[in-house]
Amino acid sequence: METKDYTQEIIDIIRSNTSPAVMSSRLEDYHANDLAEVLKKLTVQERCKLYRILDKDMLSDILEYTEADEAAEYLKEMEPRKAAAILSGMETDSLAEVLRMLDKGKKRLLIDLLDDDVRHDIEVIASFDEDEIGSRMTTNCIIIQKNVTVKEAMSSLIRQAAKNDNISTIFVVSSQQKFYGAIDLKDLIIARQDHPLEELVVTSYPYVYAEEEIDECIERLKDYSEDSVPVLDNDNRLLGVITSSSIIELVDDEMGEDYAKLAGLTAEEDLKEPLKESMKKRMPWLLILLALGMVVSSVVGVFETVVTQLPIIMCFQSLILDMAGNVGTQSLAVTIRVLMDESLTGKQKAELVFKEMRIGLCNGGLLGLMSFVLIGLYIFAIKGKTLAFSYAVSACIGVALLLAMLISSAVGTCIPLLFKKIKVDPAVASGPLITTINDLVAVVSYYGLSWLFLIELFHMAG
Amino acid sequence: METKDYTQEIIDIIRSNTSPAVMSSRLEDYHANDLAEVLKKLTVQERCKLYRILDKDMLSDILEYTEADEAAEYLKEMEPRKAAAILSGMETDSLAEVLRMLDKGKKRLLIDLLDDDVRHDIEVIASFDEDEIGSRMTTNCIIIQKNVTVKEAMSSLIRQAAKNDNISTIFVVSSQQKFYGAIDLKDLIIARQDHPLEELVVTSYPYVYAEEEIDECIERLKDYSEDSVPVLDNDNRLLGVITSSSIIELVDDEMGEDYAKLAGLTAEEDLKEPLKESMKKRMPWLLILLALGMVVSSVVGVFETVVTQLPIIMCFQSLILDMAGNVGTQSLAVTIRVLMDESLTGKQKAELVFKEMRIGLCNGGLLGLMSFVLIGLYIFAIKGKTLAFSYAVSACIGVALLLAMLISSAVGTCIPLLFKKIKVDPAVASGPLITTINDLVAVVSYYGLSWLFLIELFHMAG
Repeated sequence: METKDYTQEIIDIIRSNTSPAVMSSRLEDYHANDLAEVLKKLTVQERCKLYRILDKDMLSDILEYTEADEAAEYLKEMEPRKAAAILSGMETDSLAEVLRMLDKGKKRLLIDLLDDDVRHDIEVIASFDEDEIGSRMTTNCIIIQKNVTVKEAMSSLIRQAAKNDNISTIFVVSSQQKFYGAIDLKDLIIARQDHPLEELVVTSYPYVYAEEEIDECIERLKDYSEDSVPVLDNDNRLLGVITSSSIIELVDDEMGEDYAKLAGLTAEEDLKEPLKESMKKRMPWLLILLALGMVVSSVVGVFETVVTQLPIIMCFQSLILDMAGNVGTQSLAVTIRVLMDESLTGKQKAELVFKEMRIGLCNGGLLGLMSFVLIGLYIFAIKGKTLAFSYAVSACIGVALLLAMLISSAVGTCIPLLFKKIKVDPAVASGPLITTINDLVAVVSYYGLSWLFLIELFHMAG
Repeated sequence: METKDYTQEIIDIIRSNTSPAVMSSRLEDYHANDLAEVLKKLTVQERCKLYRILDKDMLSDILEYTEADEAAEYLKEMEPRKAAAILSGMETDSLAEVLRMLDKGKKRLLIDLLDDDVRHDIEVIASFDEDEIGSRMTTNCIIIQKNVTVKEAMSSLIRQAAKNDNISTIFVVSSQQKFYGAIDLKDLIIARQDHPLEELVVTSYPYVYAEEEIDECIERLKDYSEDSVPVLDNDNRLLGVITSSSIIELVDDEMGEDYAKLAGLTAEEDLKEPLKESMKKRMPWLLILLALGMVVSSVVGVFETVVTQLPIIMCFQSLILDMAGNVGTQSLAVTIRVLMDESLTGKQKAELVFKEMRIGLCNGGLLGLMSFVLIGLYIFAIKGKTLAFSYAVSACIGVALLLAMLISSAVGTCIPLLFKKIKVDPAVASGPLITTINDLVAVVSYYGLSWLFLIELFHMAG
């Protein structure tokens, strides 16, 4: 049932002694992604053989499926003129990414060897910051003028299709390259030759501005679910398109980043990263947590006398803190996901906080009751205390659990909402701040209740 | 710089008094996604007016951009024959999803009114489980026979394009509908009429089997980054395709689920969900955590005498537990992400564990040293203990922190690897199990060290 793995087949072909013509035609039957997978398993000699055997277009295709850093390595193995020719055949977004991986001298050399129009496109893409959507566009798209006929549009398409891959949507511009609308290729294909082109154009086709931040427009790109979305400059001129495969990559990256931040990393990591890099990504939050942890410790210190008189209550501290922490994280995760998908009105925000607190109250009530019954029994049976003492302690634990869960839900919801409001990434809010606040709440309510009821009111000591 | 929000414009048009013909032509200029956004802001009367004014194809388009549950509501507002006609015009994957939202009677009625071929397609899609990729495919694609000419292929395409939206890739089948390969529409368009079709066919185009589980093949679908990937039955017959917009949705869902699980929820939640549902999603892990928390509490109980003699060390328990927990979560998040993206060899797994432990050791060493210096000073200055006592306690804290961070990194990496091995979702491993193990490790090393060194060796008491 597994889809076949072509890697070994392809390697066998490359290592065989067939003539270049036969080998090239046999390799052309494989998907560029599979060939890309094979490249890293070959020796430098075998790869150089392949560069000679495969044609330029095929190699461009393959490099598009290779990680940018690997592609840069392969290009270094080729002579510059060939490397430039292959680069010229790539989608401009992948091309720009590969160039970023090369050292300055090599990059300059290759850029100089590129076709003039490719070089111009690359310079446009490179002019945008990495977090602007313009840096992810490709200029590889079909553009026609507004006032042509269906027949002219069709032949213009055929002319441009030779150099441009993304043909399923055709973009229409008015004078001065200003974006006017888009035509679904399907509609063009089935249109009669005398049909007015104007009627095929969707003038409310979605678009983004090149200078928009990626995380500001990624949800919109996702929602419209088009194969390619045009990118405009500030004068509404069409610069290029974002393809659906870029959108997939962006969604994946964006969620991966949030995911990493929720887990207390400053950015995503991967397997190959050096130790120092990984340490740097993890250290900031650990440091903040250490500092905030000291605050919690000082607060716990205030209750030292409670613990001296009733050492048993200290056993259940970790239980209450862990529960509060977990509830806070649950609320946080829900809130971040909601914030990611939609922009909320004030009323909806209040509803969300209210809903989270109700869940915290209900779950806290249930678990608090269970703890009261079970922990009381545990202290009575295992620790051998009196029944009254056992249930007095477990009542404190139950109530503290309820309080801590209720407040943690509120904190886990309000903090990311607040961070969003002041334009700080809400996923960053997670780890340290929420953990600390919830720890404080849990510690104060637990030891506070114990002190008030068990020691001050009932004068107990264990 | 913001992209314009068309909602108000559209609502104004609908509420105006223009004639149906003018209104329909004005509304047709908007993107279906924008019209879909507007639907939920209209009254039932206004929506019913819209159903009459817009044509069937437009309404099908709009419902594809609507959430399935909302689409089901709107369909209930229409008369069944119209609803069935609109459903027939939708992509089969969206259609299947909307049908799932309807109650049994209504669903039966509408299915009976569908076109025969649409009904057949729906039944095929409905025959797959929700976690099989077949349930997400659409039958909306262009299929041609293997042994036709370029000219025949082109006219077959034009014939099929009227009913099928996804035309950028054309799928080629041999006799008995067996999948043979794919043609890029671009290649077909620029090919000469007498060019042999065979040469245009990519025979190693990626494909998936309908019965494959979504999380098994989603990475492959992402890697090939094609606009549509064919779905085959077990006899290699072409059933339908997965479009790139479905892939975006799947990637988003898949990561969202993992994200939720990492935060201790059994499934993703949304804003509109009833309280009971949300409670149910959060309760399981809280219950497990409560049970496991009791285990930790019993272990802490063992050290009651240590705390009685040295109450000060109990102040720093939460600090060490929080740090260990955070480090474990960091390792877990990295491991889950790595596991999501690639299948690792045994050697790579060992490397990952080794790398995580090295990071744990290095960060632990740094933070341990800092804690030793700072906490020693804190106890000396604020708590007014002797210098020797202060630094003996803070040395224990520093060493326990180092140990806890080292072991937590290992646990945070090994547990998801182990879960993956025994085919349990590694993201589920997160919350309770790792938290508990790390708590136990931290508690035992901290109190154990304190007992051994401070009490047994140096006979201290504070």
